[in-house]
Amino acid sequence: MDSIVHRSTEPGAPPGTLAGRPPVGEEALHFTLVEYSQDEVKVDHEVTVAECSFQLSTPTKTWINVAGRASAQMLKSLGDAFHLHPLALEDVFHSHQRPKLDIYDQQGFVVLNDPLYLGDEIKPRQVSIFFGDGYVISFHDETEDIFRPVRERILQAGSRLRRKGIDYLVYALVDLVVDRKFPVIEKVSARLEALESEALDKPGTATLKRIHQARRALVSFHRIQWAERETVLALMRPEVPLIEKETRTFMRDCFDHTVAVMELIESYREMAGSLMEVYLMDSSNRMSEVMKTLAIITAFFMPLSFLTGIYGMNFEVEKGNMPELKWEFGYIFFWCMVLIVVSSLFFWMKRRRWF
Amino acid sequence: MDSIVHRSTEPGAPPGTLAGRPPVGEEALHFTLVEYSQDEVKVDHEVTVAECSFQLSTPTKTWINVAGRASAQMLKSLGDAFHLHPLALEDVFHSHQRPKLDIYDQQGFVVLNDPLYLGDEIKPRQVSIFFGDGYVISFHDETEDIFRPVRERILQAGSRLRRKGIDYLVYALVDLVVDRKFPVIEKVSARLEALESEALDKPGTATLKRIHQARRALVSFHRIQWAERETVLALMRPEVPLIEKETRTFMRDCFDHTVAVMELIESYREMAGSLMEVYLMDSSNRMSEVMKTLAIITAFFMPLSFLTGIYGMNFEVEKGNMPELKWEFGYIFFWCMVLIVVSSLFFWMKRRRWF
Amino acid sequence: MDSIVHRSTEPGAPPGTLAGRPPVGEEALHFTLVEYSQDEVKVDHEVTVAECSFQLSTPTKTWINVAGRASAQMLKSLGDAFHLHPLALEDVFHSHQRPKLDIYDQQGFVVLNDPLYLGDEIKPRQVSIFFGDGYVISFHDETEDIFRPVRERILQAGSRLRRKGIDYLVYALVDLVVDRKFPVIEKVSARLEALESEALDKPGTATLKRIHQARRALVSFHRIQWAERETVLALMRPEVPLIEKETRTFMRDCFDHTVAVMELIESYREMAGSLMEVYLMDSSNRMSEVMKTLAIITAFFMPLSFLTGIYGMNFEVEKGNMPELKWEFGYIFFWCMVLIVVSSLFFWMKRRRWF
Amino acid sequence: MDSIVHRSTEPGAPPGTLAGRPPVGEEALHFTLVEYSQDEVKVDHEVTVAECSFQLSTPTKTWINVAGRASAQMLKSLGDAFHLHPLALEDVFHSHQRPKLDIYDQQGFVVLNDPLYLGDEIKPRQVSIFFGDGYVISFHDETEDIFRPVRERILQAGSRLRRKGIDYLVYALVDLVVDRKFPVIEKVSARLEALESEALDKPGTATLKRIHQARRALVSFHRIQWAERETVLALMRPEVPLIEKETRTFMRDCFDHTVAVMELIESYREMAGSLMEVYLMDSSNRMSEVMKTLAIITAFFMPLSFLTGIYGMNFEVEKGNMPELKWEFGYIFFWCMVLIVVSSLFFWMKRRRWF
Amino acid sequence: MDSIVHRSTEPGAPPGTLAGRPPVGEEALHFTLVEYSQDEVKVDHEVTVAECSFQLSTPTKTWINVAGRASAQMLKSLGDAFHLHPLALEDVFHSHQRPKLDIYDQQGFVVLNDPLYLGDEIKPRQVSIFFGDGYVISFHDETEDIFRPVRERILQAGSRLRRKGIDYLVYALVDLVVDRKFPVIEKVSARLEALESEALDKPGTATLKRIHQARRALVSFHRIQWAERETVLALMRPEVPLIEKETRTFMRDCFDHTVAVMELIESYREMAGSLMEVYLMDSSNRMSEVMKTLAIITAFFMPLSFLTGIYGMNFEVEKGNMPELKWEFGYIFFWCMVLIVVSSLFFWMKRRRWF
Repeated sequence: MDSIVHRSTEPGAPPGTLAGRPPVGEEALHFTLVEYSQDEVKVDHEVTVAECSFQLSTPTKTWINVAGRASAQMLKSLGDAFHLHPLALEDVFHSHQRPKLDIYDQQGFVVLNDPLYLGDEIKPRQVSIFFGDGYVISFHDETEDIFRPVRERILQAGSRLRRKGIDYLVYALVDLVVDRKFPVIEKVSARLEALESEALDKPGTATLKRIHQARRALVSFHRIQWAERETVLALMRPEVPLIEKETRTFMRDCFDHTVAVMELIESYREMAGSLMEVYLMDSSNRMSEVMKTLAIITAFFMPLSFLTGIYGMNFEVEKGNMPELKWEFGYIFFWCMVLIVVSSLFFWMKRRRWF
Repeated sequence: MDSIVHRSTEPGAPPGTLAGRPPVGEEALHFTLVEYSQDEVKVDHEVTVAECSFQLSTPTKTWINVAGRASAQMLKSLGDAFHLHPLALEDVFHSHQRPKLDIYDQQGFVVLNDPLYLGDEIKPRQVSIFFGDGYVISFHDETEDIFRPVRERILQAGSRLRRKGIDYLVYALVDLVVDRKFPVIEKVSARLEALESEALDKPGTATLKRIHQARRALVSFHRIQWAERETVLALMRPEVPLIEKETRTFMRDCFDHTVAVMELIESYREMAGSLMEVYLMDSSNRMSEVMKTLAIITAFFMPLSFLTGIYGMNFEVEKGNMPELKWEFGYIFFWCMVLIVVSSLFFWMKRRRWF
Repeated sequence: MDSIVHRSTEPGAPPGTLAGRPPVGEEALHFTLVEYSQDEVKVDHEVTVAECSFQLSTPTKTWINVAGRASAQMLKSLGDAFHLHPLALEDVFHSHQRPKLDIYDQQGFVVLNDPLYLGDEIKPRQVSIFFGDGYVISFHDETEDIFRPVRERILQAGSRLRRKGIDYLVYALVDLVVDRKFPVIEKVSARLEALESEALDKPGTATLKRIHQARRALVSFHRIQWAERETVLALMRPEVPLIEKETRTFMRDCFDHTVAVMELIESYREMAGSLMEVYLMDSSNRMSEVMKTLAIITAFFMPLSFLTGIYGMNFEVEKGNMPELKWEFGYIFFWCMVLIVVSSLFFWMKRRRWF
Repeated sequence: MDSIVHRSTEPGAPPGTLAGRPPVGEEALHFTLVEYSQDEVKVDHEVTVAECSFQLSTPTKTWINVAGRASAQMLKSLGDAFHLHPLALEDVFHSHQRPKLDIYDQQGFVVLNDPLYLGDEIKPRQVSIFFGDGYVISFHDETEDIFRPVRERILQAGSRLRRKGIDYLVYALVDLVVDRKFPVIEKVSARLEALESEALDKPGTATLKRIHQARRALVSFHRIQWAERETVLALMRPEVPLIEKETRTFMRDCFDHTVAVMELIESYREMAGSLMEVYLMDSSNRMSEVMKTLAIITAFFMPLSFLTGIYGMNFEVEKGNMPELKWEFGYIFFWCMVLIVVSSLFFWMKRRRWF
Repeated sequence: MDSIVHRSTEPGAPPGTLAGRPPVGEEALHFTLVEYSQDEVKVDHEVTVAECSFQLSTPTKTWINVAGRASAQMLKSLGDAFHLHPLALEDVFHSHQRPKLDIYDQQGFVVLNDPLYLGDEIKPRQVSIFFGDGYVISFHDETEDIFRPVRERILQAGSRLRRKGIDYLVYALVDLVVDRKFPVIEKVSARLEALESEALDKPGTATLKRIHQARRALVSFHRIQWAERETVLALMRPEVPLIEKETRTFMRDCFDHTVAVMELIESYREMAGSLMEVYLMDSSNRMSEVMKTLAIITAFFMPLSFLTGIYGMNFEVEKGNMPELKWEFGYIFFWCMVLIVVSSLFFWMKRRRWF
């Protein structure tokens, strides 16, 4: 039902244990190292941990991006090289953490989420960002190179990213992850719009299932977004180290976006709930239509069948029973009766607004 | 589903990017420049940005109103002339921001919303107001000249607007945008009243769709109003620069109005929800009526048809079967049976309160 | 739908505008002036504004009560005489404000509500109270003399009202308005009790409409009471001028009453919601009963009609078809078949607990 | 609907009025006076107010318990003897106050509630406790001697009650009233369990009414308990006079109990709401069953009746019409047709999982 | 309904009473004593209270674990030996307390819950942890040895547990109890997933009951988890004695887990509610299908039966009545009529999308 559940560390294992994770697919890891200062920039793909740790001591700003889920071994050596806190490493290793900000001395650890919308499900994908004096290390659950736009901005000489400190890079990464929710929510919106016309125009039995799934996806998305909003808010607090005042102004803009996404999700949840009601009522309306037709047909033909039944009886006409049968205009008399029954029923139903 | 979604900046674009907006209609821009002091006032329509920026250095108070959505070029030159923050300019450019107050040093940036009620939808239209020492710059998404009442009050010699500082002008603009919700909410109220009598008196299949749409419009309106209430509240905080204490008293009155609107929206949302329930029950009532009629007709004619069926059977009367058929008063006997069946069913139904 | 909506001031009008109100009925205004000190008291009915303003300068405590809605002219002269704030006067003029407390320097302005319960609607009626050093001016939307009990307590020598300051008079007025909700809520309670027995015992089509209206009235009442609770709470804050500590103890008692009313309204809202559900289920139960009867009748008579149909067929008996028709006990055989069908259906239904 | 409503004081009556209460039954009052110190204890039943007030000046601790509702006269003399605040006395007199804590100088006034569960209703019964330096006066709405367990603990030499101050007695009384909710909630729980099996196993028309009443009782109980929780929390605040730090530790335990009761009530309310849904669905399921049976019977016998109808027609066989009637195996042919119709319908229904 | 209800202490009993508990099953108690310092560790199973209390005075860290519910006698001697507060002992004795943290001077008392998921019920099992200077005493309601993983980590030389103080042991125990919720919630998730496919694919009458039970279990679980979250949060407060700053960092990780569990429970509750709606709608859909079939069959065969009825009437053909009966192609004419009726009904239904 929800992939956040699957924690595989045994309860009681020591904190910081990098073991017991369900086997991760064959995803090759992509290391990208970006070394930059105001004047120059150097990008290396597929570097080793050793190369990375060497860069730490240089005065330039270092950004290491790891795309794909790292092995315990790799995380341990990275952790040693950059003095990353074991609890934080455990969170990166097991993935599926809720977004949060942890501050270890002179090091910040941000967990965000970059959900993938699969039509009827939200697949959470963790993004982890460590930042310290002069370096940022970012992790993404999949090998997708989501941070390319930021890298390209670094490559532009004179860009704000080059001019400003490492905290502005943190902002740029967080802002990108936050803004990636807008395309997701546009897809959700399109999906709901489609479901809405489906529910209002031609609801089928699968419509219900689809609305239910859309709703479930929104519940998951809401939970992720709620925590992400909190995380960005936490990043704006003055006591967070390394983030400077000017960057906080930008962070505020980013926070506004998380709030906007949050509100949209809430509206859509309400919409989905309302859609279910609409579906329910519509199906009840259709049934009501069917029943009315049933009732009308029954109301017309039951009395008529009774009439035919009467004249189908075998009482002995000779004994004076059922004189109508012997009348010359008996049959016409019968059809007049039918006409009277039909027209009076018609007007009675008309008055009750059955038509 | 909701036009707030459509952000077209690429995730990862540098903040303050004025690009990527969906093409805006052919709306001509209207610049209006109002220069005023306690003693004199000068109004210029259709001025250029250059003329505006010249006025900045004069000791008179300057109010520039831009009706219609500005191009990136125009915004950039305005931004340079008045030192507007790039993040704020981006918000003006892309429009569809949620209401908010941002404070950049010695400059305030207020985003409000002036929604248009289109019968079954709320179309958000952004209003942006920059204010600084001696100037106010206001933007409205459409070319509609909504601020004329304020301009006319400035034209009146001795009016409070002329006597007081630029902060009072900010208040007057905000107050006008806030009060423009009252006519909107009156329309919403009228719509709901109409839907209510429709639902209670003659509900049709379209009623459901209409209630659903009204509800959706209220959800959007609520989201806008919620943020606007927060924004006005933020404007009342003592740390907001330029707004003086006396103006805050007026702002409080304005805040009361946002709260009143908020509460009305909430009542109407609750009403719309309750209307859906009423509709559901009413339609279930009608169906229940139809079913009852069906049951009554069936209950009367089924036994009668059985009766006619019996005397329509062809057992050999000669062998002593079905002696009733040979009776002299057989047919009268049959009608007595019919009478007995009908009247006993009638009293039974009467006792069960089916009529 | 809700009379609070109808604000008729044009958006953009200067604050404090006393114009544009929908015409008010022919209600004569009643001015009552009460001058009192610990030792003496003087009550004048139907005084003029000029007489009132004269009393302001005397050392005695002055209470002016205005019953009925005042004209712009009258309010303006009152405002000049007592230095009332234009924003507050506007609130009195337009009426239908939500309850609130505004503090202008050395003057308090309390808006309360004295709703009238009209069976299926709550009609809000504004009560406005200005208080300052030595005077209280109270307004009530209608000419009803609701404050007579307080006036009579002032007339009693040695009463607490005479002994204490003007703040105790404010408390007495607020307390009276708050306590006037108890009879209203008793009526609401009686109404709901009546609707409850209606819904449980003999629900009709009008029941639904009545529950819906009762619910709507409660939503309005809730909104008013919520704001009133906030207002009384605000009056208890130490920073409110003129209200002394001892009076705050009494105000607390008054606050307890607003909370009690609030909780009752909330219970009743929940009750009304639950009533709707009960109504829905009950009507579904009744329909279910009807359907069951329909099914039982159909189940009995359909097979029987089939039986009669068989023996009504015209196959040539001579050719050996349908030998039953020639049997001597054919008719008795038919009735035995009927008995078997009826009794086996009866036991089958019995076992399924249809009876 | 709810006995808390019936306030009989006229709005506008001076605060502290001991009049206008609906006549109270013939309940004899029971005064119990307990005088105790660490070393000795004296219990007097049925004492007079005069005797009580004499005890006030003694150095021993005094506890007066009044079981049954006191007359205005009695309260006034008690009030004079112990300097009880008139507002508090009014609350005792009129009863049906919501639980609260009022602090008058050097005197505390606690209102609690000891509800009686009457199967389908919660009857609130007020408990009022005054406490001051060296004395406690407790009131209970009914003559039931609920405080006997505490009195018996005082009688035990060396008990904590004897050793500690008057604040521990207050705690003991409050704790007892709080703990008396546990048996009540056990009854509620048993009731809901019974209703649950009723709703799931054999729901009748009365089930609905019972669930509705249980829900209403829970709403009342919740309101009382909410206020009581607040009251006990208020008693734990350091600024409450006379309550010492050590007693606050015990009070915390008592607070835990109010929270536990609160949570149980909330769970039960949720349960009751869910029960209604279950009932609704179950009844809809049963109806669905009945309808299915109806549909099956109709589907089988309608085509069969049509068949018999065909061969009951009187077309002239001689003219070559309806040759089947003349066939030798016409009747057997008819029964084969019946078999084919029945079996094909049977398999069609089987496939649609109607059985 | 809920085992938390059954408090068996009489209301009014003195606090700290260890009596009146319902008889506890024959569960043997298991005492485990762990004595450890950085260098050595000693584990004794099945020790006596006397042996335990002796260890208190040694400089090594002492952890006593009691699995199974202790008798009053045993608790009293433990309480004397370790100076445990009587209120805390009462909570251990009666069990079924909500999770909480109590601080008595220099001693902490944590109550947690280790719920057991029984498919359709959550059985709460209390875990109590006392901690003081150099010792921890833990209790678990059942004899299950849940703390073995922690004991094994202590046995490992050089483990963080050995190196750090007693507060880290407290953290390890709390963390284990918190993490034990993950397997429980995985079971809940699996159960809901199963119920979801049941409700969407083949809902039966038992499905409803099962969803209702799952929902009830979630309500209980939510209540427990809510309090546990609060408890862990309370443990992180700086004013809690003995817990050092470094351990608080670990505690924060533990708190994150409680929040994650909380959010999952809330999602699942929402899911369960939505499942009920899905079930309701699905069952209404199925019924609607059945009704439609009924209506279609009736609509086809009622007119046809009327037709057969007409030609089954016995009007005297000789008198010129019913000439059709004498036609040569009368029977074929009849079948043409049938065809016309059937096909026109078919197209009419097709157009109304009944198929």
